[in-house]
Amino acid sequence: MKKIAVLTSGGDAPGMNAAVRAAVRRAIYKGVQIFGVYNGYNGLISGNIQELTLGSVGDIIHRGGTMLFTARSDEFRTEEGRAKAVEQLKKHGIEGLIVVGGDGSFRGAQKLTQLGFPTIGVPGTIDNDIPCTDFTIGFDTALNTVVECIDKIRDTATSHERTYIVEVMGRDAGDLALWAGLAAGAESIIIPEANTDMKDILERLRSGHRRGKKHSIIIVAEGVGQASQFADVITTETGWETRVTVLGHIQRGGSPTAFDRMLASRLGAAAVDLLLEGKADRMVGIKNNNIVDVDIDEALDQKHQLDLSIYQLARSLSI
Amino acid sequence: MKKIAVLTSGGDAPGMNAAVRAAVRRAIYKGVQIFGVYNGYNGLISGNIQELTLGSVGDIIHRGGTMLFTARSDEFRTEEGRAKAVEQLKKHGIEGLIVVGGDGSFRGAQKLTQLGFPTIGVPGTIDNDIPCTDFTIGFDTALNTVVECIDKIRDTATSHERTYIVEVMGRDAGDLALWAGLAAGAESIIIPEANTDMKDILERLRSGHRRGKKHSIIIVAEGVGQASQFADVITTETGWETRVTVLGHIQRGGSPTAFDRMLASRLGAAAVDLLLEGKADRMVGIKNNNIVDVDIDEALDQKHQLDLSIYQLARSLSI
Amino acid sequence: MKKIAVLTSGGDAPGMNAAVRAAVRRAIYKGVQIFGVYNGYNGLISGNIQELTLGSVGDIIHRGGTMLFTARSDEFRTEEGRAKAVEQLKKHGIEGLIVVGGDGSFRGAQKLTQLGFPTIGVPGTIDNDIPCTDFTIGFDTALNTVVECIDKIRDTATSHERTYIVEVMGRDAGDLALWAGLAAGAESIIIPEANTDMKDILERLRSGHRRGKKHSIIIVAEGVGQASQFADVITTETGWETRVTVLGHIQRGGSPTAFDRMLASRLGAAAVDLLLEGKADRMVGIKNNNIVDVDIDEALDQKHQLDLSIYQLARSLSI
Amino acid sequence: MKKIAVLTSGGDAPGMNAAVRAAVRRAIYKGVQIFGVYNGYNGLISGNIQELTLGSVGDIIHRGGTMLFTARSDEFRTEEGRAKAVEQLKKHGIEGLIVVGGDGSFRGAQKLTQLGFPTIGVPGTIDNDIPCTDFTIGFDTALNTVVECIDKIRDTATSHERTYIVEVMGRDAGDLALWAGLAAGAESIIIPEANTDMKDILERLRSGHRRGKKHSIIIVAEGVGQASQFADVITTETGWETRVTVLGHIQRGGSPTAFDRMLASRLGAAAVDLLLEGKADRMVGIKNNNIVDVDIDEALDQKHQLDLSIYQLARSLSI
Repeated sequence: MKKIAVLTSGGDAPGMNAAVRAAVRRAIYKGVQIFGVYNGYNGLISGNIQELTLGSVGDIIHRGGTMLFTARSDEFRTEEGRAKAVEQLKKHGIEGLIVVGGDGSFRGAQKLTQLGFPTIGVPGTIDNDIPCTDFTIGFDTALNTVVECIDKIRDTATSHERTYIVEVMGRDAGDLALWAGLAAGAESIIIPEANTDMKDILERLRSGHRRGKKHSIIIVAEGVGQASQFADVITTETGWETRVTVLGHIQRGGSPTAFDRMLASRLGAAAVDLLLEGKADRMVGIKNNNIVDVDIDEALDQKHQLDLSIYQLARSLSI
Repeated sequence: MKKIAVLTSGGDAPGMNAAVRAAVRRAIYKGVQIFGVYNGYNGLISGNIQELTLGSVGDIIHRGGTMLFTARSDEFRTEEGRAKAVEQLKKHGIEGLIVVGGDGSFRGAQKLTQLGFPTIGVPGTIDNDIPCTDFTIGFDTALNTVVECIDKIRDTATSHERTYIVEVMGRDAGDLALWAGLAAGAESIIIPEANTDMKDILERLRSGHRRGKKHSIIIVAEGVGQASQFADVITTETGWETRVTVLGHIQRGGSPTAFDRMLASRLGAAAVDLLLEGKADRMVGIKNNNIVDVDIDEALDQKHQLDLSIYQLARSLSI
Repeated sequence: MKKIAVLTSGGDAPGMNAAVRAAVRRAIYKGVQIFGVYNGYNGLISGNIQELTLGSVGDIIHRGGTMLFTARSDEFRTEEGRAKAVEQLKKHGIEGLIVVGGDGSFRGAQKLTQLGFPTIGVPGTIDNDIPCTDFTIGFDTALNTVVECIDKIRDTATSHERTYIVEVMGRDAGDLALWAGLAAGAESIIIPEANTDMKDILERLRSGHRRGKKHSIIIVAEGVGQASQFADVITTETGWETRVTVLGHIQRGGSPTAFDRMLASRLGAAAVDLLLEGKADRMVGIKNNNIVDVDIDEALDQKHQLDLSIYQLARSLSI
Repeated sequence: MKKIAVLTSGGDAPGMNAAVRAAVRRAIYKGVQIFGVYNGYNGLISGNIQELTLGSVGDIIHRGGTMLFTARSDEFRTEEGRAKAVEQLKKHGIEGLIVVGGDGSFRGAQKLTQLGFPTIGVPGTIDNDIPCTDFTIGFDTALNTVVECIDKIRDTATSHERTYIVEVMGRDAGDLALWAGLAAGAESIIIPEANTDMKDILERLRSGHRRGKKHSIIIVAEGVGQASQFADVITTETGWETRVTVLGHIQRGGSPTAFDRMLASRLGAAAVDLLLEGKADRMVGIKNNNIVDVDIDEALDQKHQLDLSIYQLARSLSI
C-alpha cells in the first residue's frame, strides 16, 4: 500500500485533529503517502481530496473541531454515490481509507469495504457509545467541559437556594451524564441505563433539604428526555424553585484534553498500521489501556455497556 | 463609626467574594469591626449576622458565588420588614451597611438610609446595567465565560456548515451580548439598544455564504427575545440548518477574572472608606479607571448607556 | 468496625479532596463514623483529629490541594512517634486508617499496621510513580496543566524562531514528561526510562530546521536533570537561541479533572469498603479500569513501569 | 491611500492576531487593500509581504501568538536596511504601515516616517509599559494567566506550610506583578516602582505567622531582581522553607481574554482610520475607555506611570 486517505465524519469531537495528525505522521514515517478527504463522505463523492504533509498537520493537535470538516451525506447512502466515492479514491491511486467518526460513519466505511475498498474505523464521538472500546475520542474533553459547567452552576446554586437541572448530551448513552454527575458531585443522575424512579429522586431532594442542604443539582442525560419535564415534576411536587440549563453545543468544542490527544494519537497511528498490514473492515479501540482492533460488524452488533457500578457508587456518595 | 456590616443581594456575580473580602480587610485595617449579613435582606430581618475576621475571608478572593449567600426578600419590601432589619442592625451595634448587588438591591439600601441608617451600594451584577459606573463586578468574568463558550461553538460550527444562534444574559442591557459578539467574532449581534433589522441580518448571512463562509454565529441578547424565534425566521427564509444554544446559568458562576477581582477589591475598600467618612446613600463605581461615588438616586434616575460605537465597530469587522 | 479515620500525606495532589469526600460519604453510607486527621502523620501524633460529617466534605470535590493539609513528619519516623500516633487513634476509638499519599506515606502506613493498627493506602501523587496502579490521583490534572502550559509556550515559540526547553515534574518517573510531550506534540522528550541520545536530539532539531520548521519544543523530565543543561548543549552545538521554562509548583495545584475526581471517588470509597471487610496493609489502585487492591509490600517491592510503546509512538509522530 | 500594510514586531502578545484581523477587516470595509508583512522588520526588508483578505484573518481572533510572526532585526537598525524596507513597500504600492508592538518597534516605525513613509503604532506587549495608553494589548491575558498560576500555587501552599515566591514578567514595569498580586491576594508584592523594604516584608510574614497563617505568597516583578535572591533572604532570616517559581514564557501565550480582543479590535481599526485620514507618526491607545492617538515622540518621551494607589490598596488588604 503506497497511498492511503483519512476522513472525519458524523458529529465532530475534540481530538479528531489529533487523530488526523497521527495518521498523517505515522503514514509518512512508514513511507506512505496520505491524503485528506474534506467534508466527510460528501467530499469523497465530489473528489475534495488533497495530499497532506508533515506541515499540513502542524499546530493542530490542540485544536477542537476537525480540519477536514464533516458533513452528513445523503448521496453516500445510495449505491450510485458509493460507486462515485470508490471511483474518486481509485482516481487518486488511494488504496485504503481511515474513517474517524461514530457508528453511522462506520456503517458507511463497511459499505466501501464490501465494494472491495479497505477501510479502518477510528471511534470519534463525545457520546462514548461505541461498543468494543472503553473510550471514544472526544469523551474525556466533553466530560471535562460538562463538569466545568456544573462547577459554575454550583457557584450560583450555592449562593441562592435552588434546584438546578442540567441536561447533557450522549444520545442513547448515559456515560457523559453519569461520569459528569459523579465528578461534579451531583445530587441525582438520570440516565437511560437505570430506571428513573421519580419518587426516589424526590425523596433524596427532601432528605437533603431536611439536613439543611441549600441547593441541589440534578443531571439528566438527553437520552432520557428533556430536563424541563423533570423540572416541572419537581416544582409541582415540592413547590421549590428550579432552574433548567441545556448545555447544548458547547459540549462538542474546545481544545482536547491530554487524554483525548493521547487516545487519538494512539488510535490514528494504529489505524495506519492496520491498513499497512493488509487489514480491512476493522475498528480500532482501547481496552484496558491497550490498543485493540475488532471487526466492525462484531462491534456494531454489540451494545455499548455503561458501567453500572459507577452509578451505584454515585448514589452512595450523594446521600 | 466602630461597627459596620456587609451583605450581598440579588443575582450572584463572580467577584462578590472579592468585594466582601476587601470590605472586611479594609475595615479591620482602619480599626473598625465588621459583620457579615447572610442571605441578603432576609438575613438582615432574621438577624443572621456574624462578625467577620481576617481569617473569615481568607482563600475566597478567587471563588465564584458569594460566601454570604443571597436571596430575594418579600418581607423587606414591607415597612414592617425594614423596621425589623434596622432593629437587628442596632441590636448588634452596627452603624453602617454595605450592600453588594444590582439596582433592586440599591433601592432596598435607600429605604434603610431613609430610616436613618447609612448605606453604601457596590455594583455587583453580570449584566453591567448600572448607571454611573463603567463596569459592574462580574461583567468581565461573565463576558469571558460567554466568549469561551462561543469559541467552543465555533469549533463545531466550523466543522459543520451551520448557523448557530447563541442567547446570552444581560436583562434589558445588551453589553454582554455586544462585547461577547465582538470579542468572539460573531457575524451578527442582536441587542435591545439597536434596531434589529432582520433583512440586514439575512443579507449579511447570505453575503458571507456567497463569499464561501461555511458557518455563522449570531449572538442574541435575552433582552431582545428568545434565540429560537430568530432561528425560526432564518431557517424559514434561507432553508439553512440552524442550532440554538441558550447559555443559561453557567454565565453567573466561575472564578472571577483578574479584572473583576481588582474592581471588586477597589470598590469594596472604597465603600468602607465612604462609610467611615460619614457618607450615606451613595454608590461607588468606576469611571475612566477612577473610583468614584454618586448619589444612589442620581444613579438610578439615569439609564445605563451602551457604547454604540462598539456596535458600529463590530458591524464593520464582521463583513 | 465503627470508627475509622482518613489523612493525606506527602506532596499534595489534585483530587485528594475528592478522595477524602468519597471516604467520608462512603463510611457514613455504610453506617460508620469517620474522622479527619489534619497535617498528615504530624497531626496523628499531636491528636489533631476531628469527626467529619456529610457537610464537612460538601463543596470540596472540585478543589485543588487537600482540606486535611499535609506535612512531613520527622517524629513519625521514630518508634516513639508512632506509638503516640496509635495512642491517639485508640483514644478516639478509631479502628482503621486510610492514608492518601505516595510511596513514603504508604511506608508510614505499614508501620502502623505492624503495630496492629489496620491501614489502607490510596495512591495520590502527580508523579504516577506508584507500582500496581495504572494511574495515581492527581496525574491526569497535572498532565493537563503541563499540556496547557506547553500550548501557551507553543504560541510564542511559533511567533518567534526559537527552541524552548520545558522542565516538568515526576521525580524519578518520566510519565508526566512523556504523556505531556506526546499530547502537546513536542519535538523531543527526554525521560529517565529511555537513553538520552543528545546526537539524536540534535539531529531531529536540525532535520526539522532543514524542513523549514520555525520552532521546537523539548520536554525534559526532572528525573533526567535540569533543563538548562540541555539548553546549553543545544545552544553550543547549533548556535540557536534557546529558552528554558521550569514549570514548578503550578503542576501540583488546580481544580482536579473529571478523570481524577472519578478515580479519587472510586479509590476513596474502595478503601473504606476494604477496611470494613477487615482488610489491612493493602493499597487500592486501578488496573485496566477496575478497582483492585494489593499488598503494600508487594506494591512497593516492584518498580513502576512506564509504557515504552508510547515513547516509540511519540518519536514516530514528531518526525 | 489605496494600499496599506500591517506587521507585528517585538515580543509577541495575546491579542496581536485580533489587532491584525481588525486592521484587515476595517481596511477592506473602507475599500482599501491591505498587506501582511511577515517576520516583523526582517520581512519588510526581504519583501515577505502578502495581500490579506477577509478569509486570511478568519478564525484567528481567539488565537495566541501572531500569525504574521515576529523577529528581531539587526539589519533594520542600519540606514541601508531601512532604505530597503521603504523600497519594498513602494514596490508593492503600499502607502502606509501599521506596526503592532512595543516601544522598540515604535522607534523603528518612527524611522520609516522620517523617511517619508507614514506609520501608525499599535501598543502590543504584555508588559503594559507604554506611556499614553492605560492598557496595552496582551496585558489582560498575561495578567489572568499569572493569576491562574498563583491560584494553583495557593492550593499547594495552603496544603503545606510554606512561603512561595513567584517571579513574573514586566521588564522595568511592575504592573503585571502588582495587579496579579492584588488579584491573587498575595501577601507581599515587590515592584520597581516602590521601595522594597525587606524589613517590612519580613515583619508582614512574621505577623501573619503569629496570627496562624499557614502560608504566604510573595510576588516579585522581574524588574526588581530574581525571586531566588528574595527567597534566600527570607530563609536566612526566618528559617522557613521557601519555594521559588519563575513563571517564564507561559505568560506570553494563550488565547486572548475578551478584554484584549476588544482592545485589539478597537486599536487595530483605529490605526487604519488614522492612516486613511492622512495621519502619520502617531500611536493609538486607550485612555479612560476612549480610543485616542498621540505623537509617538510625545509618548516615548514620557515614562509609563504605575498607579501607586493600587499598591497602597494591596498593602491594606493583605494585612
